[in-house]
Amino acid sequence: MKSNEVKNSTPVNDIKSLRLITAIKTPYLPDGRFDLAAYDAMVHVQIENGVEGLIVGGTTGEGQLMSWDEHIMLISHTVNCFGDRIKVIGNTGSNSTREAIHATEQGFAVGMHGALHINPYYGKTSMDGLLVHFRSVIPMGPSIIYNVPGRTGQDIPQYVIEKLLSYPNFAGVKECMGNNRIEEYCRQDITVWSGNDDECHDARWVHGAQGVISVTSNLVPLLMHNLLFEGKNNLLNQKLRPLMNWLFVEPNPIGLNTALAQLGVIRPIFRLPYVPLNLEKRREFVNIVKTIGREHFVGDKDVQLLKDDDFLLVGRY
Amino acid sequence: MKSNEVKNSTPVNDIKSLRLITAIKTPYLPDGRFDLAAYDAMVHVQIENGVEGLIVGGTTGEGQLMSWDEHIMLISHTVNCFGDRIKVIGNTGSNSTREAIHATEQGFAVGMHGALHINPYYGKTSMDGLLVHFRSVIPMGPSIIYNVPGRTGQDIPQYVIEKLLSYPNFAGVKECMGNNRIEEYCRQDITVWSGNDDECHDARWVHGAQGVISVTSNLVPLLMHNLLFEGKNNLLNQKLRPLMNWLFVEPNPIGLNTALAQLGVIRPIFRLPYVPLNLEKRREFVNIVKTIGREHFVGDKDVQLLKDDDFLLVGRY
Amino acid sequence: MKSNEVKNSTPVNDIKSLRLITAIKTPYLPDGRFDLAAYDAMVHVQIENGVEGLIVGGTTGEGQLMSWDEHIMLISHTVNCFGDRIKVIGNTGSNSTREAIHATEQGFAVGMHGALHINPYYGKTSMDGLLVHFRSVIPMGPSIIYNVPGRTGQDIPQYVIEKLLSYPNFAGVKECMGNNRIEEYCRQDITVWSGNDDECHDARWVHGAQGVISVTSNLVPLLMHNLLFEGKNNLLNQKLRPLMNWLFVEPNPIGLNTALAQLGVIRPIFRLPYVPLNLEKRREFVNIVKTIGREHFVGDKDVQLLKDDDFLLVGRY
Amino acid sequence: MKSNEVKNSTPVNDIKSLRLITAIKTPYLPDGRFDLAAYDAMVHVQIENGVEGLIVGGTTGEGQLMSWDEHIMLISHTVNCFGDRIKVIGNTGSNSTREAIHATEQGFAVGMHGALHINPYYGKTSMDGLLVHFRSVIPMGPSIIYNVPGRTGQDIPQYVIEKLLSYPNFAGVKECMGNNRIEEYCRQDITVWSGNDDECHDARWVHGAQGVISVTSNLVPLLMHNLLFEGKNNLLNQKLRPLMNWLFVEPNPIGLNTALAQLGVIRPIFRLPYVPLNLEKRREFVNIVKTIGREHFVGDKDVQLLKDDDFLLVGRY
Repeated sequence: MKSNEVKNSTPVNDIKSLRLITAIKTPYLPDGRFDLAAYDAMVHVQIENGVEGLIVGGTTGEGQLMSWDEHIMLISHTVNCFGDRIKVIGNTGSNSTREAIHATEQGFAVGMHGALHINPYYGKTSMDGLLVHFRSVIPMGPSIIYNVPGRTGQDIPQYVIEKLLSYPNFAGVKECMGNNRIEEYCRQDITVWSGNDDECHDARWVHGAQGVISVTSNLVPLLMHNLLFEGKNNLLNQKLRPLMNWLFVEPNPIGLNTALAQLGVIRPIFRLPYVPLNLEKRREFVNIVKTIGREHFVGDKDVQLLKDDDFLLVGRY
Repeated sequence: MKSNEVKNSTPVNDIKSLRLITAIKTPYLPDGRFDLAAYDAMVHVQIENGVEGLIVGGTTGEGQLMSWDEHIMLISHTVNCFGDRIKVIGNTGSNSTREAIHATEQGFAVGMHGALHINPYYGKTSMDGLLVHFRSVIPMGPSIIYNVPGRTGQDIPQYVIEKLLSYPNFAGVKECMGNNRIEEYCRQDITVWSGNDDECHDARWVHGAQGVISVTSNLVPLLMHNLLFEGKNNLLNQKLRPLMNWLFVEPNPIGLNTALAQLGVIRPIFRLPYVPLNLEKRREFVNIVKTIGREHFVGDKDVQLLKDDDFLLVGRY
Repeated sequence: MKSNEVKNSTPVNDIKSLRLITAIKTPYLPDGRFDLAAYDAMVHVQIENGVEGLIVGGTTGEGQLMSWDEHIMLISHTVNCFGDRIKVIGNTGSNSTREAIHATEQGFAVGMHGALHINPYYGKTSMDGLLVHFRSVIPMGPSIIYNVPGRTGQDIPQYVIEKLLSYPNFAGVKECMGNNRIEEYCRQDITVWSGNDDECHDARWVHGAQGVISVTSNLVPLLMHNLLFEGKNNLLNQKLRPLMNWLFVEPNPIGLNTALAQLGVIRPIFRLPYVPLNLEKRREFVNIVKTIGREHFVGDKDVQLLKDDDFLLVGRY
Repeated sequence: MKSNEVKNSTPVNDIKSLRLITAIKTPYLPDGRFDLAAYDAMVHVQIENGVEGLIVGGTTGEGQLMSWDEHIMLISHTVNCFGDRIKVIGNTGSNSTREAIHATEQGFAVGMHGALHINPYYGKTSMDGLLVHFRSVIPMGPSIIYNVPGRTGQDIPQYVIEKLLSYPNFAGVKECMGNNRIEEYCRQDITVWSGNDDECHDARWVHGAQGVISVTSNLVPLLMHNLLFEGKNNLLNQKLRPLMNWLFVEPNPIGLNTALAQLGVIRPIFRLPYVPLNLEKRREFVNIVKTIGREHFVGDKDVQLLKDDDFLLVGRY
């Protein structure tokens, strides 16, 4: 189903060279559909603050709660509106090879610049199965492999990654197993992005990572840009630590969703099974914003302490 | 789900001003998926020969044989690769209001410039129902209403169209009921495109139509451009008549599919329930090409007489 | 995907022998989902009054407004709850051969006793295409072919039907082209059901039809049973005429939906593009019920005159 | 969308009383569709050998590789053909609450007797989110909660389970965290099934478990029945140990799929990302069968050593 249009083909080096990539949040309307106006505004702010790439429909963007047609639509919308200013990497991976093939093929057909591929979580498979899975999708376009055993229940070992290096479309690894693993990859000249915001400063400046695929940059894109582009900065890294700790006190994107709602950037609407952080944690966030400085956060309204009743949880959408 | 991006909003006058719009054919791979490489090549030729707009996934493009995710993907792909050179009008209408709403919302989200809306064929409804149906989708973006009673079993009468005129997004009507109806619309300054290739010359030059939404222009785009842009030309109109008659000897796009396959522009693959024209008719087409001149037709291979066995019919895809 | 379970295989003669088949209405909840409790109650009344078969998800049941998973679910639910007392015929036809194949395969897998197959409406095809279409699905199980040119825009001519006679699964024809056509089929010993309630008495008693696939029997199942089982009865036929005329004053199932709502059998909820009959027509229905006798109609509440505001129209569901 | 049919309502005690439940394998045709004939034969053997319940589309049945319409169809097919002889528990859980709601509602509508519900794997959520998730689906019918942190990346702690006890539809827990956890539940009179075949004998006879949801019983249903119904039997437990170890040498159902193919019970077809065990492991299985005794295994052909080329791996289906 290959297109022969130059516009639909991104050199893998364009993906490899990205340093700051945001796993962008997906905002919702009260009936659970996407709030594209809010999304567009968020993406604008990302671009203005130097973010170079987006993961669309990642776990942060709640791809796992989307139907595939919603998912491809959001990738396509992002390409169409912003693809000339920021790289769009669709999370078209799946634990079902069929779905990964179909979604990745569609994603590249609608112009996404790269794909993010997870190993088959939950169902899992053997290492042989893992290789067949990745080999089914990598030939379609620039691909980042995503390793997050805390979610998938299964580590992608180095020797599996090494067997993928020969593919021209292999762009690199989003690695959540820590900076030792990252350093080993960097020694082999494998492009790596840290998947852990709290480790990304060291990953970049000590261990050789290319950059980060970040959740925190949804909130403070310019500070994350500083952290990744202006050399070692332990002070800034320390300053951001409380925010990062707060963000991941519950499985992501619970913290992020709560934060963006309190910043007035998205409506306080959650697709289940996500629910907001509790009032105490929400109060903590208000204080974190004040400590770091409201001006560093996205949005232009005052940070609010939302009440339980302010949130809408949607199960049917 | 409105986007606030300027890029995603087309002035309705940009749609109204189109004169030559092709209802583009969708080509297939042997397993029934889209052949995007062939499609891209076809669209290029359309653009080069002056076609100004495309209907994507119309009845000619076999939208009725697509899943909606395929359909939206093709619209999106076309916008992404060609949207700066040609207007992309998605056939996101349906006989189900739910489907029309969902598809039209998605189509505009991925950047299509306009929508084509059919009345609820097969299921049909009352005139009141028809109005509610159209009013559910027109506010989303520039919209052409499509009247083809031979397919839908129900005429959209003038008074229904007249009730839609007040919508800023109402672009006009694709009308298959003949040039008398067209003339009546034109008297009221309603933009109309003829839906019948064999009547479009007169529709344009005698009855006041804006132009045509054409099947024939898939094959001879420059001749159709001449017919629509260079003033009355009965000679050319007559010259094209045998081709047009041949194209519609069986329900469209059976003739078109057969023709494009014999011109070597698409693979000879049909999604059922479409099957190729028989050998005798295929032989007629070879002669028609020779009479009109191979150079006027798309493709650069010799026109072939395909055998029955050359065709592949796919039912599962 | 054939099952080898006897339970999943219905002799074609069990379908051929059905005389009174109801094209059952699908009732809805306020959010547009199926109201299964109301549906179950309706089916019970059908069974108690001698109806022998159901068309599930026909045009009357608004299959055209269902997703396929809803459609198969409803077939399956009906089989599971009522399949030992009434024959379940799923309308698994489609204008897309792919969809017809998939849905029919699924329908028989979940135990439906027969399939109803329409010719490809709207998209249409050649007679050769029509034959390939039907031949793709008939081998799966007992099949009734449905001819309704007023909806499809295309007549299924007799010679197409005749080419299907050799299939053991060919059960017969639901014919809407009138009693002359029916009589011709009957002369050839082809099983035919009238698709027009107002012609079914004569179809059965004069022209040789096996019976009827009825809309009216949703409302007055016992009277329709009398009409079909107790010999010629012009008086009853005449008595029912005003009801039948009223039912089809707008495209079916607009009248039926309105009637069932006023009888208190379903909630007054319409999936678009259907909208209720207007107040004047609704008042007429109240009078028709009184004339024929409330006791002959389904439901046990007084017939009501509903106001415009009592109806809920749903477009997103 | 509740049905009011008695046939569609199973007392929760009917689920609680099941001791031997098989997580049934789904067999495939060469094009990746279900092989219902093979499936029916497998289910027959399960019933004949005393298996009391089936998990349809569990991880063993590869629900994660099914579209939801396939999944519901298989549940429905099983209910229709076998629901009077064996309890059908559909794995209608999901990491998306929307999907779990929709699938569970459909599953009960088509007559499944119980649902299996997983916590939101991969996406994960907070404990509060977990509770909202389960509470969205338990009211629909008898429900088993499934805890398998090795797949989901997140343990369901006891206090979450305890908050669900008050639901009349709460049937019990499928627990993979070992026999200590099981014993604690049993002390509170919570019904538990072991999710680990190698621990199920002790779970039942030492720690108080109700029974097992078994993979091994796909292969040796009568031996598993003996193990669960005829009192402590360490000898049998030991005899089965090599088979159980072999089955789980790679993520389930890789071993099971390989075994059933070599037993001639299913075609050697794998949906990706699953691939067969390697030749050495396949040879081991042949020996295991000989040691335990071919007559104890399902199927009536000789056990075969399949070659790599005998297997077909399907990615698009």
